Amino acid sequence: MFAKRHVISMREFSRDEIDSVLDLAESLEPSARGGRCEALRGKILALLFFEPSTRTRLSFETAMMRLGGKTLNLGPAEGSAMAKGESLADTIRVIGAYADALVIRHPKEGSARLASQFSPVPVLNAGDGAGHHPTQTLLDLYTIRKESSLDDLKIALVGDLKYGRTVHSLAYALALYGAEITLVSPPTLEMPDRIKADLAGNGTIVRETHALDDVLGEVDVLYITRIQKERFPDPYEYQKVARSYRIGTENLEGARDRLIIMHPLPRVDEIKPEVDETRHAVYFRQSFYGVPVRMALLKMLVGDGLE
Amino acid sequence: MFAKRHVISMREFSRDEIDSVLDLAESLEPSARGGRCEALRGKILALLFFEPSTRTRLSFETAMMRLGGKTLNLGPAEGSAMAKGESLADTIRVIGAYADALVIRHPKEGSARLASQFSPVPVLNAGDGAGHHPTQTLLDLYTIRKESSLDDLKIALVGDLKYGRTVHSLAYALALYGAEITLVSPPTLEMPDRIKADLAGNGTIVRETHALDDVLGEVDVLYITRIQKERFPDPYEYQKVARSYRIGTENLEGARDRLIIMHPLPRVDEIKPEVDETRHAVYFRQSFYGVPVRMALLKMLVGDGLE
Amino acid sequence: MFAKRHVISMREFSRDEIDSVLDLAESLEPSARGGRCEALRGKILALLFFEPSTRTRLSFETAMMRLGGKTLNLGPAEGSAMAKGESLADTIRVIGAYADALVIRHPKEGSARLASQFSPVPVLNAGDGAGHHPTQTLLDLYTIRKESSLDDLKIALVGDLKYGRTVHSLAYALALYGAEITLVSPPTLEMPDRIKADLAGNGTIVRETHALDDVLGEVDVLYITRIQKERFPDPYEYQKVARSYRIGTENLEGARDRLIIMHPLPRVDEIKPEVDETRHAVYFRQSFYGVPVRMALLKMLVGDGLE
Repeated sequence: MFAKRHVISMREFSRDEIDSVLDLAESLEPSARGGRCEALRGKILALLFFEPSTRTRLSFETAMMRLGGKTLNLGPAEGSAMAKGESLADTIRVIGAYADALVIRHPKEGSARLASQFSPVPVLNAGDGAGHHPTQTLLDLYTIRKESSLDDLKIALVGDLKYGRTVHSLAYALALYGAEITLVSPPTLEMPDRIKADLAGNGTIVRETHALDDVLGEVDVLYITRIQKERFPDPYEYQKVARSYRIGTENLEGARDRLIIMHPLPRVDEIKPEVDETRHAVYFRQSFYGVPVRMALLKMLVGDGLE
Repeated sequence: MFAKRHVISMREFSRDEIDSVLDLAESLEPSARGGRCEALRGKILALLFFEPSTRTRLSFETAMMRLGGKTLNLGPAEGSAMAKGESLADTIRVIGAYADALVIRHPKEGSARLASQFSPVPVLNAGDGAGHHPTQTLLDLYTIRKESSLDDLKIALVGDLKYGRTVHSLAYALALYGAEITLVSPPTLEMPDRIKADLAGNGTIVRETHALDDVLGEVDVLYITRIQKERFPDPYEYQKVARSYRIGTENLEGARDRLIIMHPLPRVDEIKPEVDETRHAVYFRQSFYGVPVRMALLKMLVGDGLE
Repeated sequence: MFAKRHVISMREFSRDEIDSVLDLAESLEPSARGGRCEALRGKILALLFFEPSTRTRLSFETAMMRLGGKTLNLGPAEGSAMAKGESLADTIRVIGAYADALVIRHPKEGSARLASQFSPVPVLNAGDGAGHHPTQTLLDLYTIRKESSLDDLKIALVGDLKYGRTVHSLAYALALYGAEITLVSPPTLEMPDRIKADLAGNGTIVRETHALDDVLGEVDVLYITRIQKERFPDPYEYQKVARSYRIGTENLEGARDRLIIMHPLPRVDEIKPEVDETRHAVYFRQSFYGVPVRMALLKMLVGDGLE
């Protein structure tokens, strides 16, 4: 059912494969909450983070521990020391011989795929620069399925749609489920034409607007992303844009009852704390769902040989 | 018996509650020395150290591992990166969803209590700036009970009594046991009046002196703390003071046979190495007792649901 | 059979003791590859790395985990902070009370032996400056025994033989097995006379040359080490030397069929990637063999009390 050896990009997943990961994640949720599980006892997951990403790292570590396994950490400082002089291929071959699977995060696009070519064990991509971050997309899909529905979904992707790899990857995956996608961004941060063309080519309904209020009453999911200050040459311009995409309870008056608000976190100013207390806020649960989803992948890839 | 959900400050512990922690710690000592224990198997303790404290961190990690559990580490560098832009509340909510309990160390007073208000799981304060460090006090009490006695205790607190949060917290706790306390410090580093007034108000006998030799023959416990150079505008003044509180074997000639010398460690110059070989030196055992005491707290807070 | 309490230097190992470590390592290889083993369940190995050495650290951690045990990490940054003001003896006594064994790496020669004098638990030296690194030598011997033979061995040690502690320690150990040793180095990086005299005194056959091609057809093992740029005042001089010791497939034409090429890794330029695909390349397996060898030592030192 799931014969993949590596998890590098969402583009390699069929809808059936995604569903099988989400189904397994669902069944692992009690273990993710602390119920004892020994599926990967005796197994080792090595985490190679060549750039920091605390949240993703801790989530993978938790997933491995909740499966009864252990983790081995190569920190960012050590990673850079190791990279000095030694090829990534050699590092991967050496550490791959210590562990049963590798998680890699690297600033350079394509690094995870390169790693997968030299690793004796499965490689999971935890973000390669402007490239892919497939486990984030899988946990996003899991959240929608669990807190809303992947069928007949109307979703708005909001914020920086130009540089945000998270929303690119999510948009492609949503297309597999026939979602209607509304793109909401400042004019300077619109979704790249290439991706919009791909989506349209698949028959996906895609709308585009700059005004968040236009869509708030018509969607099931608001997926908010951070707008980074560095993208704007003029700080005043940034302030204006950032403010116009900030969600507070006053924006939610016309929202559907069952609207859910998602955010990959960390948030800075995009969602006011007052929203946390509403029934719409699911972003903290979304963050937790990274654990069962990563457990599912680890269980599928590392297998149960020793049970 | 012990229904606390969080461990933030010693001031919230009754004498009965302290006794129940120390009793459990006693019973866990064989496991703390490496005897197998699986009470918290499958459970995860997250350590959030926003400032370094190797000794306390390793002691908590050891405690969790000796109970059969696992640990998740957010290092100081990552902590500061995480703090950048994200609120402590959000960090706590996210990592709290990965773990079964959180240990937090933070430079700002009040941080641990704030964390406890947002955490879905128990929070243990491992030091919040000038605030509290309750597990240090518990291990100090355990050491006295084990190596001397908490009944009819005569103890001298020596060194920097003005800034040392360790001795403040310990003094309050000792008052619960009716100890007679002698305060020994340089004139510029005396115990704050507020605390002396609190102790006197409880009926505690408190004496005060600047001369260590005055009390050495009359106490059961010498609790030595470090005098930090930074407290003195004049390095010569520091040298003079530091020397007058340095303990060597020549100071111990008039001491009681069963005198014990304690120190929270690390020591710099306060106790000469020659003292290590005497029957009075208990500071290394004191450091070890942090393990069974922290095991007791973790077992009480995280519970035994899975056994 | 193996009553050592600490592993500080190879010079303390007899041939029988080495053989017993290698025999146990052999029997532990299936567990090193991920087969479940619980020999050290409930046990803790503390890693005190006062200077970085990712590869050695990860290999020790893997070894402990593959035995079912847990690890406690004192990072380099913390190590230096800890060293500040506190004596190494105190650090060792404190952390030694948390763990069942200590691995220490320290920039100063003699540190590991000093640590062993204060530690309540076994100490393993993972490199002390220009001093010893015994587990590297043991894994080198294991590799030779496994991939070639320790009997009637003809081996060439190649590269920086003056400063490389790895080859010094290996040369002494090979003498125990009656190996014929050829030393191949640039004139400025020859093996120290003292060591050559020691080897000759033991009856070891030692040859010396500057030309790698002279020996390539006559040996069973090529042990390549890195030549560090810093050793040369003139970068041009370095380039010339480095190039003359670089191994490619063209050098291997006259080699014995069963020649194996070893390298302690990381490599920089000493072995061309094209060699990786030949039957001669064993350096990645050599790196992996660090796991079963370190498992054997840990099992011997920490013991099986709890099984």
